[in-house]
Amino acid sequence: MEIDRPEDQNSETKKNSSLFQIFFILLEVVIVILYGIFVEFRYDPVDPSLPWNEEPQTAFVTGYPVMQDVSVMMFIGFGFLMTFLRTHSWSAVGFNFILTVVVFQMYILYNGFWIRCVSGDNWDFKIQVDITTMVTALYCCAAILISLGGVLGKLNLFQLLVMAFIEACFYALNEAICFDRIHLQDIGGSITIHTFGAYFGLSVTMMISPKQTKGHPKNSSNYNSNLFAMIGTLFLWMYWPSFNCFPALNPEDRIRSVINTLLALTGSTTAVFITSSIFKKGKLSMEDVLNATLAGGVCVGTSADQIVYPFAALFVGYWAGFMSCVGFEVLSPLLQRKIGLYDTCGINNLHGMPGIFGGIFSAIFIGALTEDTLGYRVEDRFDGRTASEQGGLQIASLGITLAIAIITGVITGLILKLPCFNGPHDLFEDQVFWEMDEHQVPNGYIPTMTRELITEGMESPRKHKHHDKELKEIE
Amino acid sequence: MEIDRPEDQNSETKKNSSLFQIFFILLEVVIVILYGIFVEFRYDPVDPSLPWNEEPQTAFVTGYPVMQDVSVMMFIGFGFLMTFLRTHSWSAVGFNFILTVVVFQMYILYNGFWIRCVSGDNWDFKIQVDITTMVTALYCCAAILISLGGVLGKLNLFQLLVMAFIEACFYALNEAICFDRIHLQDIGGSITIHTFGAYFGLSVTMMISPKQTKGHPKNSSNYNSNLFAMIGTLFLWMYWPSFNCFPALNPEDRIRSVINTLLALTGSTTAVFITSSIFKKGKLSMEDVLNATLAGGVCVGTSADQIVYPFAALFVGYWAGFMSCVGFEVLSPLLQRKIGLYDTCGINNLHGMPGIFGGIFSAIFIGALTEDTLGYRVEDRFDGRTASEQGGLQIASLGITLAIAIITGVITGLILKLPCFNGPHDLFEDQVFWEMDEHQVPNGYIPTMTRELITEGMESPRKHKHHDKELKEIE
Amino acid sequence: MEIDRPEDQNSETKKNSSLFQIFFILLEVVIVILYGIFVEFRYDPVDPSLPWNEEPQTAFVTGYPVMQDVSVMMFIGFGFLMTFLRTHSWSAVGFNFILTVVVFQMYILYNGFWIRCVSGDNWDFKIQVDITTMVTALYCCAAILISLGGVLGKLNLFQLLVMAFIEACFYALNEAICFDRIHLQDIGGSITIHTFGAYFGLSVTMMISPKQTKGHPKNSSNYNSNLFAMIGTLFLWMYWPSFNCFPALNPEDRIRSVINTLLALTGSTTAVFITSSIFKKGKLSMEDVLNATLAGGVCVGTSADQIVYPFAALFVGYWAGFMSCVGFEVLSPLLQRKIGLYDTCGINNLHGMPGIFGGIFSAIFIGALTEDTLGYRVEDRFDGRTASEQGGLQIASLGITLAIAIITGVITGLILKLPCFNGPHDLFEDQVFWEMDEHQVPNGYIPTMTRELITEGMESPRKHKHHDKELKEIE
Repeated sequence: MEIDRPEDQNSETKKNSSLFQIFFILLEVVIVILYGIFVEFRYDPVDPSLPWNEEPQTAFVTGYPVMQDVSVMMFIGFGFLMTFLRTHSWSAVGFNFILTVVVFQMYILYNGFWIRCVSGDNWDFKIQVDITTMVTALYCCAAILISLGGVLGKLNLFQLLVMAFIEACFYALNEAICFDRIHLQDIGGSITIHTFGAYFGLSVTMMISPKQTKGHPKNSSNYNSNLFAMIGTLFLWMYWPSFNCFPALNPEDRIRSVINTLLALTGSTTAVFITSSIFKKGKLSMEDVLNATLAGGVCVGTSADQIVYPFAALFVGYWAGFMSCVGFEVLSPLLQRKIGLYDTCGINNLHGMPGIFGGIFSAIFIGALTEDTLGYRVEDRFDGRTASEQGGLQIASLGITLAIAIITGVITGLILKLPCFNGPHDLFEDQVFWEMDEHQVPNGYIPTMTRELITEGMESPRKHKHHDKELKEIE
Repeated sequence: MEIDRPEDQNSETKKNSSLFQIFFILLEVVIVILYGIFVEFRYDPVDPSLPWNEEPQTAFVTGYPVMQDVSVMMFIGFGFLMTFLRTHSWSAVGFNFILTVVVFQMYILYNGFWIRCVSGDNWDFKIQVDITTMVTALYCCAAILISLGGVLGKLNLFQLLVMAFIEACFYALNEAICFDRIHLQDIGGSITIHTFGAYFGLSVTMMISPKQTKGHPKNSSNYNSNLFAMIGTLFLWMYWPSFNCFPALNPEDRIRSVINTLLALTGSTTAVFITSSIFKKGKLSMEDVLNATLAGGVCVGTSADQIVYPFAALFVGYWAGFMSCVGFEVLSPLLQRKIGLYDTCGINNLHGMPGIFGGIFSAIFIGALTEDTLGYRVEDRFDGRTASEQGGLQIASLGITLAIAIITGVITGLILKLPCFNGPHDLFEDQVFWEMDEHQVPNGYIPTMTRELITEGMESPRKHKHHDKELKEIE
Repeated sequence: MEIDRPEDQNSETKKNSSLFQIFFILLEVVIVILYGIFVEFRYDPVDPSLPWNEEPQTAFVTGYPVMQDVSVMMFIGFGFLMTFLRTHSWSAVGFNFILTVVVFQMYILYNGFWIRCVSGDNWDFKIQVDITTMVTALYCCAAILISLGGVLGKLNLFQLLVMAFIEACFYALNEAICFDRIHLQDIGGSITIHTFGAYFGLSVTMMISPKQTKGHPKNSSNYNSNLFAMIGTLFLWMYWPSFNCFPALNPEDRIRSVINTLLALTGSTTAVFITSSIFKKGKLSMEDVLNATLAGGVCVGTSADQIVYPFAALFVGYWAGFMSCVGFEVLSPLLQRKIGLYDTCGINNLHGMPGIFGGIFSAIFIGALTEDTLGYRVEDRFDGRTASEQGGLQIASLGITLAIAIITGVITGLILKLPCFNGPHDLFEDQVFWEMDEHQVPNGYIPTMTRELITEGMESPRKHKHHDKELKEIE
């Protein structure tokens, strides 16, 4: 009986819990020491290479509301989107919370170090933080939370923390390579955030995933868990324009990014409702609606500021929504049957494939830019590179990102299988990770009560009364 | 038994599902083609008639956070407010989602065409989109979502899509007439958004509404569905000042709109808690609290920027909250008994009557404006019209809006009764529209289990029948 | 049986409901009259002592999105954080809603009057309202909602309204004394908001709290109620930087406040996950995660703009999270056993102790400020006072705040015990306060049904086993 299993699990959990606590404490000690040595506030954003090259107050005014939207996407958006598992909602939102927080802390350091390594500027080696740093740190969180979607329910918090520790490091490295060396244009991160996060996560999943999790009885949702998940979906949808517009270099790019992202999202949403209706013979699948509707925002990411015709953004959205919906309906079951890849939240469909297409589309859209459509020379936009040169760099970055994500993901997956982590035996189950009383167990107290009523069975009127009293107390 | 009915419904659903899919695909094909021909970005907002006649970046800075608040009101606010139906929450939030998206796409085209027809400017016939366009498109969504509240649970997605297709068209026409011809002042849309949406929706409801839906066992809420609905109510409440202030023409009007809206909302909220407590003899009704508390925001809409004394905004709020609460407690049951009008979410109480009073109040407040209270000549505010002339235009617009809404609503209702739409036989039921496994059916798996316990369990046929009947009622 | 109890309660509720309605109506009448006499809009923010001393539009632009974040913290943040009680969620979010609204209305008057009394300016005695007034009114709501957390489930709405009426008055008095007389620096309100609200609430709780509420069967949460509560926690977490940065006097202070608050929150969140894991032997406690994770935001409040080294904000967060978590795990049960203090939401742990430490830390951080770290003379920051003088004023304000909060709280508690209020006999129970049909009672209709099945139901032991197995599978 379910209610007993956590007992067996308890002893296992305790075995590695001290190791987890020691690791986490050490991590925080190292973080606070490094912050003490390296991190300081930046007040004067006069560096002309900064996205918001206005005077400080305007930088705050322009950037702060956008930063808060991105923050909501991480904590509420990703957190609640993953609550759809009916016996794993607490872990979904709770682990999402702590991972975001720790990655936020770590990224500021990783980024500072890698930028220095890659760019080699003669910089005074202080990591200066401002509103822009906050947003780029949240972007890193997005990549790690995407990976979390792949492994959700199959790793304990210790494993997730180690995964985040490794992934954030290589995310920051890849970001430094793509932006500071290759001069990738990737305003909404289809390549550096979504593709990286998805294929890192899928590689980890391939390594650690117990086979046949699909058939697992707890790998499912219920009525309310899907409503909670809808909160996540909608906040992601609504604030995606903020995610895709923050790094814009000028007002025109910013307005284009916002509107293109909105149009792409409307495109993917309509495509999903149509495609899902076709697959489900006139009904709709909540899984499709919760996830694939967002694919437009992923896919338009890299080129949100490069698309100069609104209808093109709609097209990107239609394609992304259709492809993502087909992914959920056809590809995911296929991959699971053929190669045993089980991807809890379908990150390949929502982030992986749309991310790759986002990269490819960006090469096409950038290649198609002309002085006529832009109003100024294309070379002025790309530091002297022509449209086709920049298009090539986009594809190169995509390749490098995929390579780094997959290689480091596979290695991370192998590390997480080490016995010291003591991965959970009971999958998709909150009771393994959370102290729960009888009222708190997923789906409420009813089963326990009913079970007791049944086992003690009701014959004698005396017992009836007894249960009656029990019910009073419970209510 | 409920669990069987969807099977019967399935075949019906399939019959019209291909028609729905074809309609939706064609609609999107037409939209993308028209976007390709007509829609382009606007970067240079120097047109002096634009609300945000600042340089582009400031326009973004001022308008973007307000736009995001309005977006949250549509997707989360309206979406979750309607989840209160305990077996229709998925459809409430899902249909709200897709309708918002499609109306957003369509409005940009409708608005572009009607503005050209009505104003007859020698404009180069490109529809230029910017942040302001995004917000006005969301305003149109609000009107359609209000109508959705009236028909919720009684139409399938095909019917809703056709309703939105027609309503958005006439919404945009009415808007063009009221603003570009009659020079209506309606910053928060009490007239053009709330009154239009409510009476269009009520007209459709009168035409299509199966009688006696009030007694329908599924037309009810449960503990959690009302908590989900509270998320919607609160986001609508909090972001209503953004809704009512966006089109303000100058900083003074904007600050007045925000504060007047907040005060009117506090007025309606206190009035509702008092009135509901009187009706319920010391208890409170969740229906009143979820809905009528928002009436102040509706009612102050037209005059949010015209009210120069804060206490007047409180009065508008008290009146709106009281009237709306009486509407829910007295008028709605009465209308249903007398004329068979059943309005699922009570849109007449929350949007209809407060909208009409908002229009009337605006005539009074505008009529009372003087150079003394404004600090400048009233004629300068209204392009040379006196206060009483402008007051008259307000009432004229209200009449025109009501006429257009009711006539087009009745026609739409008649169209939606055509057999090709195959309206749902099973009302307020998610299982008709969503693919659901045993865990996902509303109210969880318990009924199935219990039912099995019963059929396999107890011996006497009499008891079986008895429980069977009970379950039916409960479901 | 529970289902009957509300009947008994009904008659009691009715007895005092007319008194409540009369009080509430009178209160609103007085409010609207005073608004009519005293309140007017402020359009011209040229007063150099104002936080946002920019031209009006910029004041709106800078302040409005921040105001909306603070608003979300009140209605959604506090409202949903308190929904964790499984049979009191409606009252939590509903009473939170109405109290916020009424306190918002009252504070504007209280503040206007006290400021005049304390400062004695020759001011023309009009209370001028602008965006800043809206935010300071929401700050007052925060203090009252903190107190609500202490008494939640143990007072009826009449008592809560009277509590808010008294508390808001003394909150505004204390605020006027601390800021206008003592020149306290308290940007995020650790002292004036959190300490005041917590110790006022705890004093009321001590006076009114029925003993042994801890063992009360309804004083508990369930799976979904904790998920709803998580929505509250996360919105509080995300928007806390807005809460702590609004009153900043210059862009540097504002950026520091935002980043210090974020870092302190990450610190408290990591500390809580570690500490909770240690207390729960490898598992986590949802109560800790929902509450103590926010302690960093409370504790860094007073000094958010004074901390010039980012690592110091992390330290404040670690300490606050650790202390708050220990509070929930050790101190709360202890206080309840020893002195019978039962604090429903643990406000002593989340607001009380972190608030006091926030005040003490601010004295230390201010005392440590030098011309070197600031870039300008410390005396210029504090109107001529040295760092150590200002540090002393911080401690003095903390003492005065504690004294006023405790004394007025005790008196309020004694008033609320008067028989005319007829406090609820049935604790933590929504059915006492809300009209509920059979579907709406907390935890749904299942128990009633099951109970009937049982009494009418099962006899044979074989069948018992069968059902037992079924239940296993379902879980």
